[in-house]
Amino acid sequence: MVALGGGHGLAASLGALRRMTDRLTAVVTVADDGGSSGRLRAELDVLPPGDLRMALAALCDESEWGLTWRDLLQHRFTSPGSLDQHAVGNLLIVALWEILDDPVQGLDWVGRLLGARGRVLPMASVPLAISARVRGSDRVVVGQSHVATCDEEIEEVVLDPADPPACPESVEAVRAADWVILGPGSWYTSVMPHVLVPELARALHETTARTCLTLNLSSEDGEARGLTPAGHLDALAKHDPELRVDVVLADPTVVDDVEDLEAAARRLGARLLMRQVRRGDGTPHHDPLRLAAAYQDVFDDFLGDVGTPAR
Amino acid sequence: MVALGGGHGLAASLGALRRMTDRLTAVVTVADDGGSSGRLRAELDVLPPGDLRMALAALCDESEWGLTWRDLLQHRFTSPGSLDQHAVGNLLIVALWEILDDPVQGLDWVGRLLGARGRVLPMASVPLAISARVRGSDRVVVGQSHVATCDEEIEEVVLDPADPPACPESVEAVRAADWVILGPGSWYTSVMPHVLVPELARALHETTARTCLTLNLSSEDGEARGLTPAGHLDALAKHDPELRVDVVLADPTVVDDVEDLEAAARRLGARLLMRQVRRGDGTPHHDPLRLAAAYQDVFDDFLGDVGTPAR
Repeated sequence: MVALGGGHGLAASLGALRRMTDRLTAVVTVADDGGSSGRLRAELDVLPPGDLRMALAALCDESEWGLTWRDLLQHRFTSPGSLDQHAVGNLLIVALWEILDDPVQGLDWVGRLLGARGRVLPMASVPLAISARVRGSDRVVVGQSHVATCDEEIEEVVLDPADPPACPESVEAVRAADWVILGPGSWYTSVMPHVLVPELARALHETTARTCLTLNLSSEDGEARGLTPAGHLDALAKHDPELRVDVVLADPTVVDDVEDLEAAARRLGARLLMRQVRRGDGTPHHDPLRLAAAYQDVFDDFLGDVGTPAR
Repeated sequence: MVALGGGHGLAASLGALRRMTDRLTAVVTVADDGGSSGRLRAELDVLPPGDLRMALAALCDESEWGLTWRDLLQHRFTSPGSLDQHAVGNLLIVALWEILDDPVQGLDWVGRLLGARGRVLPMASVPLAISARVRGSDRVVVGQSHVATCDEEIEEVVLDPADPPACPESVEAVRAADWVILGPGSWYTSVMPHVLVPELARALHETTARTCLTLNLSSEDGEARGLTPAGHLDALAKHDPELRVDVVLADPTVVDDVEDLEAAARRLGARLLMRQVRRGDGTPHHDPLRLAAAYQDVFDDFLGDVGTPAR
């Protein structure tokens, strides 16, 4: 099973999927240029480690050992000096990269430290920059941290470099998967970038895996503000017209117009599944158990349906 | 068995003792104010972690696992930015202290990570400052990094605070030990500080453990320049007149005047044992196997000699 994404959205899907399988690979965006990751990237010329760190933390073993090292990874220094807000896990990942001279090996070592249930890989082998063209304007917003907080409607996002080398292990994971889970997450900066890496997009088109697209719980803030659920699907289709999806998973509370969303899902080749995946506390966060149960429904739906059993 | 010291000297004794026992505790000076440790101490108001990190690295298990995490601990960033020369292990130790709010627990977690053969403890529970009074002058050199590179003869070193709280686990380790190993190491800044912490000095006076004092291989540079081997012993005795030592271990190449050194050893209550403990490559470094063999001779010398068997 392969989960694509970045940030808190990917952590949510991993938090659910880790309860269902050990054969889990996270393929993570590497375009962050803000915060601790952005500073490390600028200072040491490395992949931004932050989204990779969060994915690893989401997969950690829930023993005292795993949780202690997870807490270490997620800990941020607070100081009046230059370490302020650096996440310790970012420093640790970057140092392993410097020692081992191989991003995948470095991440695997952190995974071993955490007893991680699964593997975390970067989607590309080089650091990326994301830019967004604003709708109805010539304005281009440059950099993931600016795109993510952009308050204008986004027409299109592009990567720089436009044809980055994919991480070979990530391409292989997508090709070998039974299921690919896309989203939830910041639509333009965590979900979309994967289909903009040509080798990874080709793997997504050619894999025999089923694909499930999980919608967000809120589009009130940030980059995708004002985009309807159907609009999310159409934006994805516009960036990768060849992408085919089997299931679109949505929480009922975000769907005002079911028919509109069903139609958009159909245009991607998908059926719509609505399940409560939101926490009960009113926050726009996924409940890991509800999300896991929903994924179980998704996978069971296809059991016996076609040749490949869902795992 | 308890080894007291700091820096490369302590790493040398630990490198030998780890071959002889699993029941090993390092009690480490916490007065460093230079380099990565000094910057962390200033920025985050913590114990300087560098000497503790080096002691942990010296005790690491020599499996692929242990060596990889040891390499991570010892790795230093190189950059044009603010992370330059920070040792990753220093950042990791300090972060564990912040999370666990307990220096000893934090060090024990790093020890578990490394599969360390033994335990590493700070000698005091608060960061210390070392000052040195220069002989025949009113001049006072302030700060370990300045004392360590002082090119004038030192009359006396003092700690600030003068009566720091000892780490209780360190006091307990000295009281419960069979053998206490003092030195080698920077005489005024790594070896001497321990006898200046009142509770630790009291434990050294009152313990039933035998004490072995290991002399350095060179006194050509830095703080102890010009001090004869006998002068090293006399300086220690002057700082702690109650300290009793059982064996003084010296490499023959550093002893010009055997009788002089034997007399100084006798004043501490010790016999002199001369053994080649130096590497064969001409550098002033201890060979861990030769040092281990010499310690074996030291311990065997006392077997059956008195009540307590040496371990």
